[in-house]
Amino acid sequence: MKQFINSREKVVTEAIDGLLSTAEGRLGRLDSFPHIKVVVRTDWDKSRVALVSGGGSGHEPSHVGFVGEGMLSAAVCGEIFASPSVDAVLAGILAVTGNPGCLLIVKNYTGDRLNFGLAAERARALGYKVRMVVVGDDVALPDLPQPRGVAGTLFIHKIAGAMAANGAGLDEIAEEAERIASQISSIGMSLDTCTIPGFQKEERIGSGMAELGLGIHGEPGIEQVQFSTAAEAVELVTDRLEPHTNSEPVIALLNNLGGCTPLEMGVLANALIKSRMGKRIKGLIGPASMMTSLDMRGFSVSLYTPNDTDLAALKSSVPIQAWPGFHNTDAVKLISIPEGLRPVRLVSSGNEQVRALISRCCTNLKNCETELNALDAKSGDGDTGSTLATAANAILKKIDDLPLADNSQLFLSISQELSESMGGSSGVLISIFFAAAADVSKEGHNLQKSLIAGLERMKQIGGAQVGDRTLIDALEPALAVLDDGIESAAIAARNGADSTAKITRAKAGRASYVAEKNLAGYNDPGAEAVAILFEKLLSN
Amino acid sequence: MKQFINSREKVVTEAIDGLLSTAEGRLGRLDSFPHIKVVVRTDWDKSRVALVSGGGSGHEPSHVGFVGEGMLSAAVCGEIFASPSVDAVLAGILAVTGNPGCLLIVKNYTGDRLNFGLAAERARALGYKVRMVVVGDDVALPDLPQPRGVAGTLFIHKIAGAMAANGAGLDEIAEEAERIASQISSIGMSLDTCTIPGFQKEERIGSGMAELGLGIHGEPGIEQVQFSTAAEAVELVTDRLEPHTNSEPVIALLNNLGGCTPLEMGVLANALIKSRMGKRIKGLIGPASMMTSLDMRGFSVSLYTPNDTDLAALKSSVPIQAWPGFHNTDAVKLISIPEGLRPVRLVSSGNEQVRALISRCCTNLKNCETELNALDAKSGDGDTGSTLATAANAILKKIDDLPLADNSQLFLSISQELSESMGGSSGVLISIFFAAAADVSKEGHNLQKSLIAGLERMKQIGGAQVGDRTLIDALEPALAVLDDGIESAAIAARNGADSTAKITRAKAGRASYVAEKNLAGYNDPGAEAVAILFEKLLSN
Repeated sequence: MKQFINSREKVVTEAIDGLLSTAEGRLGRLDSFPHIKVVVRTDWDKSRVALVSGGGSGHEPSHVGFVGEGMLSAAVCGEIFASPSVDAVLAGILAVTGNPGCLLIVKNYTGDRLNFGLAAERARALGYKVRMVVVGDDVALPDLPQPRGVAGTLFIHKIAGAMAANGAGLDEIAEEAERIASQISSIGMSLDTCTIPGFQKEERIGSGMAELGLGIHGEPGIEQVQFSTAAEAVELVTDRLEPHTNSEPVIALLNNLGGCTPLEMGVLANALIKSRMGKRIKGLIGPASMMTSLDMRGFSVSLYTPNDTDLAALKSSVPIQAWPGFHNTDAVKLISIPEGLRPVRLVSSGNEQVRALISRCCTNLKNCETELNALDAKSGDGDTGSTLATAANAILKKIDDLPLADNSQLFLSISQELSESMGGSSGVLISIFFAAAADVSKEGHNLQKSLIAGLERMKQIGGAQVGDRTLIDALEPALAVLDDGIESAAIAARNGADSTAKITRAKAGRASYVAEKNLAGYNDPGAEAVAILFEKLLSN
Repeated sequence: MKQFINSREKVVTEAIDGLLSTAEGRLGRLDSFPHIKVVVRTDWDKSRVALVSGGGSGHEPSHVGFVGEGMLSAAVCGEIFASPSVDAVLAGILAVTGNPGCLLIVKNYTGDRLNFGLAAERARALGYKVRMVVVGDDVALPDLPQPRGVAGTLFIHKIAGAMAANGAGLDEIAEEAERIASQISSIGMSLDTCTIPGFQKEERIGSGMAELGLGIHGEPGIEQVQFSTAAEAVELVTDRLEPHTNSEPVIALLNNLGGCTPLEMGVLANALIKSRMGKRIKGLIGPASMMTSLDMRGFSVSLYTPNDTDLAALKSSVPIQAWPGFHNTDAVKLISIPEGLRPVRLVSSGNEQVRALISRCCTNLKNCETELNALDAKSGDGDTGSTLATAANAILKKIDDLPLADNSQLFLSISQELSESMGGSSGVLISIFFAAAADVSKEGHNLQKSLIAGLERMKQIGGAQVGDRTLIDALEPALAVLDDGIESAAIAARNGADSTAKITRAKAGRASYVAEKNLAGYNDPGAEAVAILFEKLLSN
């Protein structure tokens, strides 16, 4: 059982209590678990028309998620995909209905219609004014006298909710709700079935196939269709909806049936707006999970052409997390890419001594390519030497364009060059080393201070320290004595590099993934490169 | 491929455009698709510290979903689970950073750390003030020097976001962010792997098992554990977190890793609040999808003990749909079940004539049990006769308790009795028939008008009309002539009942599921029962 539940019997009541635990007292439930599961607004004074909806569970956030100011007054929950009892609905009505009366908003399923219908009769017998609107927005079967109620019901929750909040009367709201219900059209498509809590998922939809025209209870769609892309899926769905609309602008409600990722819903929203129907879509509710079918990887589109009053009602904001809000559909706002993104090529300048130093370093690195590769092959993929040689070649090639007379600008140029030519984590880290050194050098600090600052930034970003079997083991001691001269630095680097052969538990970098026995006795190739770099400056 | 995408290459850019299509101009993106994917606030004037986050995609709503007033200024998106490039991060920084500077909020993954790190250096070289906080809140591997950054990062987004909105300086925000980052602990658990768009899902976690301590990129958890219930899963997770907290109250962030249903997240929230750790949890962020791993059926819990300033920052509301808000955890508010739910037993009263009529009707119905069952067996499950006999027995048993002297009260009593004793759709529908008749009778209308009103309500709720092969085919014509006497009614009922034998395409009720050839030549058993009822009143 691949579901985070405790038991099939308690999934609905526990989920309701989980939700209510963070409702901060704005919502409560009737003290009648487990048979009667009714969630109500606690700030509700019965001075306006109450709106009660509900049905089987498994459609979350419907219906409990839409209880609150400006939408439902109460939600009556059945077990998973099962209608609540007459008593439960009656309890919901009685809990929230005052003199202005109550509108029941019911999706067109036999059990819901009958149980809500009888509860309404019971409430009337007790003297309450109750009306009921049955929503059957599903257009999957075009000539069905009893179309199912699906996600389009949300239009009614929101518009009737706004009317009730504004003090409209029961008959006015009920008649408007009936008119709207008759004009909403919805259809769904899914790539997979849903998983009923406590049961294995039924594997019904083959690879490359989708079901079109499905309800929200895991029942099969009216047909299986070929599925290739999201864009084609959206065209198929809107083609089915089109005959049920007139030629006027529409508002679309894009509903996640539960299992689509936000990425997929974003792709579907983009496809909907760019579809043939898209230019008629003036506003979008969603994409969001509103009327789900557990974890079904599917979506539904509902269309409605609102009048001005409806539109204002849909747009009015409500303090209800599950309501995704109404959004005008606009062209994506594009912003020009900022200046400064392309590295500024710094003005070249000459300094023969610096030029010679850089040239020697690069040549020395190139010359030990094979040696370093061999060492790297002991603990990695054997390319440290080649990576450094590539970088050295790139610097050598550009050497006459470099701002050799200004340390800060020079470091910055080297940083940019290495990040473009060297690649990989090491390229980025050495690029960070030179960029940070440039930053400090600009403030007038000497070479040692600048390079140490670069090292510190590299350690911070890279996360490695001395003792982690990286080039830092050679570089840090070398830079610490750099002001004493190259010879001191070379000795320190060599000692540091040689110490890495004894480090068999690397904590950072690539060697941290290598078994200990493969590391013992071999220097880290990065540290070795640093040692060679300093040593060769002594000898040539 | 069971995903609503168009192509693996375009999934991220299309999803971003889908989101931005409904952003109503509050968000925009740099005009640099596909290589640079940066979403920015368009109402951002650079007068405060900019907050930039990002990383690989597949974690939606992170990071684009948290761009907006009071949280991020920009989000830099990579491809699925891949770090964005240095250029992309730099573009994001440049697009939103003014004189107050910019804080980069980076989850601790090598690629992100390096690319954001180098971009920060580049921006500094261009004269921008940039700091970077690296979040590593994952406690899955207790002694890891580089713990991963996961959902706890949201604490930083929100608190730093509030500080920036209030005009705090860059260093102040950065240092506070670093302090908070060092004190957040998170861990995740999953029942299933995630599906990378364009690939098949890896089946790695066996039945009855869960992975504990996983990252957000589909990599395996540090261990597989037995899974039995949500409550045990939560205890296991909070046990791992507990050593990383002190004994103070905590705020918990309950994150859906993508594939859990709202029901499961509700069950998990309930379990968390009721867990051993629960009494220390003073507030909850979520349950919601905040930092997901595509469609992974898992959750994570992050804990943090805020100071008063942090707490106010977490509580401050932001106009960002993806932010679920901060909620105090309270006991579930229970409301007493309303009065009037148990049917009022009406005061019995005598009327010999009515008593005799009811008695004859009930006896007659009982006597044709076998005949009606046989008829029902042709098109249904052969129990119409028994169902009616059960109802008749129940009425007979209560006959002396009924308010026989008052039609309205009598109908109401029969309605209540039938809904309790008769069961099924037919019991509810006939109960509705009598309840609605009671309603109209109470207004002083005669028997015919009252029963016709009952019929109309039953048709409305049940959805069947004359010609749909139900008892309505006999009842409607009979009631239409009831004022002319029982004989007229009986003739009309018989004609109606017999007409059902020719109706082979039932549109409502149970027979709508039966093949046409099985219906031809047989009366509908409900209609037949009505005809028999009236006919027998003539003959006995």
